[in-house]
Amino acid sequence: MMRIDIISAVPELLSSPLNSSILKRAQNKKKIEIYIHNLRDYAFNKHKQIDDKPFGGGPGMILKPEPFFECIEKLQSERKYDHIIFTTPKGKIFDQKYANKLSLAKNIIIIAGHYKEIDDRVRQHFATDEISIGKFVLTGGELPALIIVDAVVRLIPGVLNDSEAALDDSFQDGEIVEAPYYTRPAEYRGMKVPEVLLSGNEKEIKKWKEEQSKILTEKWKNYNN
Amino acid sequence: MMRIDIISAVPELLSSPLNSSILKRAQNKKKIEIYIHNLRDYAFNKHKQIDDKPFGGGPGMILKPEPFFECIEKLQSERKYDHIIFTTPKGKIFDQKYANKLSLAKNIIIIAGHYKEIDDRVRQHFATDEISIGKFVLTGGELPALIIVDAVVRLIPGVLNDSEAALDDSFQDGEIVEAPYYTRPAEYRGMKVPEVLLSGNEKEIKKWKEEQSKILTEKWKNYNN
Repeated sequence: MMRIDIISAVPELLSSPLNSSILKRAQNKKKIEIYIHNLRDYAFNKHKQIDDKPFGGGPGMILKPEPFFECIEKLQSERKYDHIIFTTPKGKIFDQKYANKLSLAKNIIIIAGHYKEIDDRVRQHFATDEISIGKFVLTGGELPALIIVDAVVRLIPGVLNDSEAALDDSFQDGEIVEAPYYTRPAEYRGMKVPEVLLSGNEKEIKKWKEEQSKILTEKWKNYNN
Repeated sequence: MMRIDIISAVPELLSSPLNSSILKRAQNKKKIEIYIHNLRDYAFNKHKQIDDKPFGGGPGMILKPEPFFECIEKLQSERKYDHIIFTTPKGKIFDQKYANKLSLAKNIIIIAGHYKEIDDRVRQHFATDEISIGKFVLTGGELPALIIVDAVVRLIPGVLNDSEAALDDSFQDGEIVEAPYYTRPAEYRGMKVPEVLLSGNEKEIKKWKEEQSKILTEKWKNYNN
């Protein structure tokens, strides 16, 4: 069974997404173990201090190195980790290819920063992968950690039902966007589902889906490249 | 005050991130109102059915159009929305420029898909913006919705403390990555903070930060372009 350990200064942020929908079911089905580690539990002094001002000045607080070292070394003493992921806007942007790779791992640590940044010695000493979710500024690495977990866990065999099979999702198979989907009612407020989808003609339906996928993939590329 | 309405089939997923850290504080400080709408509350029939099989076949379930129409039209009857954001892998990839734009809005709806997809008539009829978080497959639009909310809310004046001022964060100001950060202790397990940061020489510190930022921005570009 795959195991993911997430280290965070704001562990309460992680609880509802990890206990809903497919992530909940994957844990119930024993397909994945997810452990949350509260950085504060590894703080040294009596004030449970986990952050401090940056050397060299500037606004914002920096997460201290010691609690991360304590926590990660304890985990490493118990098992071998294939990936220690440092979530940072400075990293390589997460994509499906990397999610596919992670889904083959046995043990993964995700380090979620918060506040301004984590002391860089944590990255230097432990990070095997530096991962960003995109070109934008967030409050912490918790949402990126959840994105990584969601994208990876749904690839583990047995997590999705057959009927949810992920293989034809957009991006599962390169930069290809799927055709649009419609369900009942066939007509709603005058808006009709494309007739071909109601035809029962499998060959025509397949052709339509391929054409639509081509159009939407072109549109997506114009947006994003 | 800005208002964000999120429509979801799995509203319980959203609760802990919206009630932690800066998003919690922003709501307490009356800088933002966030409302979650449970799609199931807008279902018609007695089974509270919100999804159905796709026309034309294929795996997975499609969210029906009617509950979205009911919910969004109710919201629109109460106020004018500047953006109705449809989260979809088919959309334009979220970035800081778009977050900055959204932060100037008054009322925003975010439609979070789940399961296979949402009936495309919802997108056609309502979406002003089609937004993706990246080139990967997720279980639903809830985590993307949370990413959008987090990135936008921290830009609203008065949400961050002065000491958290977002202006020098990576990407706030174009594709520029910040220098690394360090805090106490100045030496930890033999790993020393770069001497210049301890020097008190503001000019030298500024120069070092600029150099490091240049190096990390180049590294980031090599990763991601």
